[in-house]
Amino acid sequence: MLTKQKEDFSKWYNDVVLQAGLADYSPVRGCMIIKPYGYAVWENIQKLMDIKIKNLGVDNVYFPLFVPERFFKKEAEHVKGFNPQVAWVTHGGGKKLEERLAVRPTSETIMYDVFKNWIQSYRDLPLKINQWANIVRWEMRPRLFLRTLEFLWQEGHTAHATEKEADEMAQAALKMYNDFAEEYLAIYCIPGKKTEAEKFAGANYTLTIEALMKDGKALQMGTSHQLGQNFSKSFGIQFLDKKGRKTNVWQTSWGTSTRMVGAVVMAHGDDKGLVLPPKIAQYQVLIVPISSDAKIKTYIAKIEKILEDKKIRFFTDNREQTPGWKFNEWELKGAPLRLEIGPKEAKENKITCVSRDELKKNSISLKQFNPEKLLDAMHKRMYEKSKQFTLENVREAKSYEDFKKIIKEKNGFVKAFWCGNPKCEKEIQEQTKATIRCIPFDNKNKKGKCIKCGKEGGREVLFAKTY
Amino acid sequence: MLTKQKEDFSKWYNDVVLQAGLADYSPVRGCMIIKPYGYAVWENIQKLMDIKIKNLGVDNVYFPLFVPERFFKKEAEHVKGFNPQVAWVTHGGGKKLEERLAVRPTSETIMYDVFKNWIQSYRDLPLKINQWANIVRWEMRPRLFLRTLEFLWQEGHTAHATEKEADEMAQAALKMYNDFAEEYLAIYCIPGKKTEAEKFAGANYTLTIEALMKDGKALQMGTSHQLGQNFSKSFGIQFLDKKGRKTNVWQTSWGTSTRMVGAVVMAHGDDKGLVLPPKIAQYQVLIVPISSDAKIKTYIAKIEKILEDKKIRFFTDNREQTPGWKFNEWELKGAPLRLEIGPKEAKENKITCVSRDELKKNSISLKQFNPEKLLDAMHKRMYEKSKQFTLENVREAKSYEDFKKIIKEKNGFVKAFWCGNPKCEKEIQEQTKATIRCIPFDNKNKKGKCIKCGKEGGREVLFAKTY
Repeated sequence: MLTKQKEDFSKWYNDVVLQAGLADYSPVRGCMIIKPYGYAVWENIQKLMDIKIKNLGVDNVYFPLFVPERFFKKEAEHVKGFNPQVAWVTHGGGKKLEERLAVRPTSETIMYDVFKNWIQSYRDLPLKINQWANIVRWEMRPRLFLRTLEFLWQEGHTAHATEKEADEMAQAALKMYNDFAEEYLAIYCIPGKKTEAEKFAGANYTLTIEALMKDGKALQMGTSHQLGQNFSKSFGIQFLDKKGRKTNVWQTSWGTSTRMVGAVVMAHGDDKGLVLPPKIAQYQVLIVPISSDAKIKTYIAKIEKILEDKKIRFFTDNREQTPGWKFNEWELKGAPLRLEIGPKEAKENKITCVSRDELKKNSISLKQFNPEKLLDAMHKRMYEKSKQFTLENVREAKSYEDFKKIIKEKNGFVKAFWCGNPKCEKEIQEQTKATIRCIPFDNKNKKGKCIKCGKEGGREVLFAKTY
Repeated sequence: MLTKQKEDFSKWYNDVVLQAGLADYSPVRGCMIIKPYGYAVWENIQKLMDIKIKNLGVDNVYFPLFVPERFFKKEAEHVKGFNPQVAWVTHGGGKKLEERLAVRPTSETIMYDVFKNWIQSYRDLPLKINQWANIVRWEMRPRLFLRTLEFLWQEGHTAHATEKEADEMAQAALKMYNDFAEEYLAIYCIPGKKTEAEKFAGANYTLTIEALMKDGKALQMGTSHQLGQNFSKSFGIQFLDKKGRKTNVWQTSWGTSTRMVGAVVMAHGDDKGLVLPPKIAQYQVLIVPISSDAKIKTYIAKIEKILEDKKIRFFTDNREQTPGWKFNEWELKGAPLRLEIGPKEAKENKITCVSRDELKKNSISLKQFNPEKLLDAMHKRMYEKSKQFTLENVREAKSYEDFKKIIKEKNGFVKAFWCGNPKCEKEIQEQTKATIRCIPFDNKNKKGKCIKCGKEGGREVLFAKTY
């Protein structure tokens, strides 16, 4: 049995992830096992996002898992940010190593050491690469998919001749993530800029997309960093420009991870279990035969042929269990479209369809059966629901009392003005557990009194509690 | 400039890999950087093989990178085989760990510890999973793609109710590898069984496919292990059979890696560089405009449209360099089909085609241009050439003197009888550097005198030097 969301959202989340077969705990502290049903979701995400990444003119590569300690230490802010989270290899091939190797917590330093050889002239720019890889960060409070000691991700890394190009690339990567969340995950996100306190260690600035989960907490879905010349100065990445002058390159990096699977669970799930967006579900259509009658089999074969021709991923559940048991099972597993086929359907050339998000039975004729349209409509409903839920849960706070009340009673995003002082930011976090999720792009010119210290001229920002 | 194959094959290999942009050395000892052009080959291999793996009824998963020392030590033979190659994480999150973590050299132990929870009854069998992952083995003599400290691979793991099913699965995985090598890599392989000395640490037996490289050395392309009940006994993986009896499962594991990219280089390459099999090349067709004339551009757009419609991967090289420079560059990079388009071609609606394996110019009319057919024909020629080369280089040795002479003067495979005694096997290796690559499936019943000790009743086996 699933815990109810309202009772204990966090327990509901673990129940769903485990019971739906997305993942399992592993005997290694903080690491998870991604099971077939969950890995299929990640594979679909990978396939679809990889196309978008390549459309940005980015090539895939693979760099070593290990980062020698001396590289890792080259960019001062970077090492300060990541050092506490690193796992160190000290022995290999039966011997103690002369230099420790960090298991990559991110690949800036191991990549940029080689960039200095790959980049000589303006003709070598822009350089745009991406890798799909595993990452290790020693997390103290691990949670399945959201925060695990090891996770899977993609990391894009680019080098440019000018600051403007790096700015544009950082924006383009963020837009790609935002489009992806809308088009494939059916999740509405709010794009914006991180504060200095929340930005990537070693970046000039960090852009982010933030999404609201069903418990009213925010989840960071993807980030894009403009690295300025910080790394190119530490690693000596210079190029000869058209006039023969040596200049340091401007860089970006951007990433998103298996955390997105967790987002899908928490943005769409309900008390019956997962609700998977049709474009990333392992099976988009699920067929349940009401009996093992030969006529039903023949009729189902006809439906299967239609799905095959349309390249729709489907599964016909011919297992021993009862239809009712299967309905529950696949509601838990969030299969988008369920087709119930019994003697009546076979005889009348009809199909009983149930969309996972609505759970209403619709009887349609085989002739009118258009699975793409049904899946598409479901995707749109899910996205609209996510958007509406998010917008309904953005509240303006007029005073700090008001702010604390909203965070305590309602959660969600709180819009408020902030003076820009990290001290106010920190105090708010200590007192309410809410952090500044982003400075949204869409209200750059609004100014007002800081919610904490009352200073005039503050920027409007979005606060929320997070994972 | 490339070293000639005959002068120094090993240097030729490194030259090609580096100059064609497949890979680069990394600052981490023994690790490599897979560059975009090489990674594209691996990506195509992955995509195509993944389909074959799924067709075997196998689901993809992801297990942790780290293996706790106590698991790693559970299967005695296994730990003995892998221990010398392990990299150990001893510190994480700023603290010394209570138990060391092995960076996976293979995933049997971390997976099978969970199998005991996943498998309870005969209904849970067969269990068939696969993962695409990175692997670390501390290699003493690293070589790009062939033997690197970290490499990328897939590892399939299955559990079955009976020995027979495990035997069949091990055979099916090997057949899948053999088909893949033929259909996609255009490499002829010889399938067979490994000797006890060469089998996987912890297996009952290991099956292998072995291919001959152009210098006459053999390369192991993929292996499939029948693990018996060795691991299921160490890890307590038991199921209740239909009669309610508890039994240990029978298991298999099988893998192949980025080493296949090295095989493609060495099986097909020539003194001008790479010759990439069309099905796995990043660009299957390469268009070189002879000038930047507008009419040529328009004509090329027409050709590009044809290629796009047929979903053929192509690249039009519009860079500043001369056509001659580009021909050399793309011969080095092994692009399968080159189209040279100049004013004559544009005017007469013709295409000058050059297949990388033949390097002959053929003029054909646009109407007759059938790129799929040309690429297919090239694939077939490459496979036939690989097959012919291999069969020509299988030699029978009648005496040990004969054997030593062949290995010294000609390399290639040497067919000889072997009594089955590991002592003879070891002495031959020490004296000639040749090892038993496999006991081929196709000559099970042939018997004869051991090439080393002269004992009667020996099995016919294939010897060769290897990487």
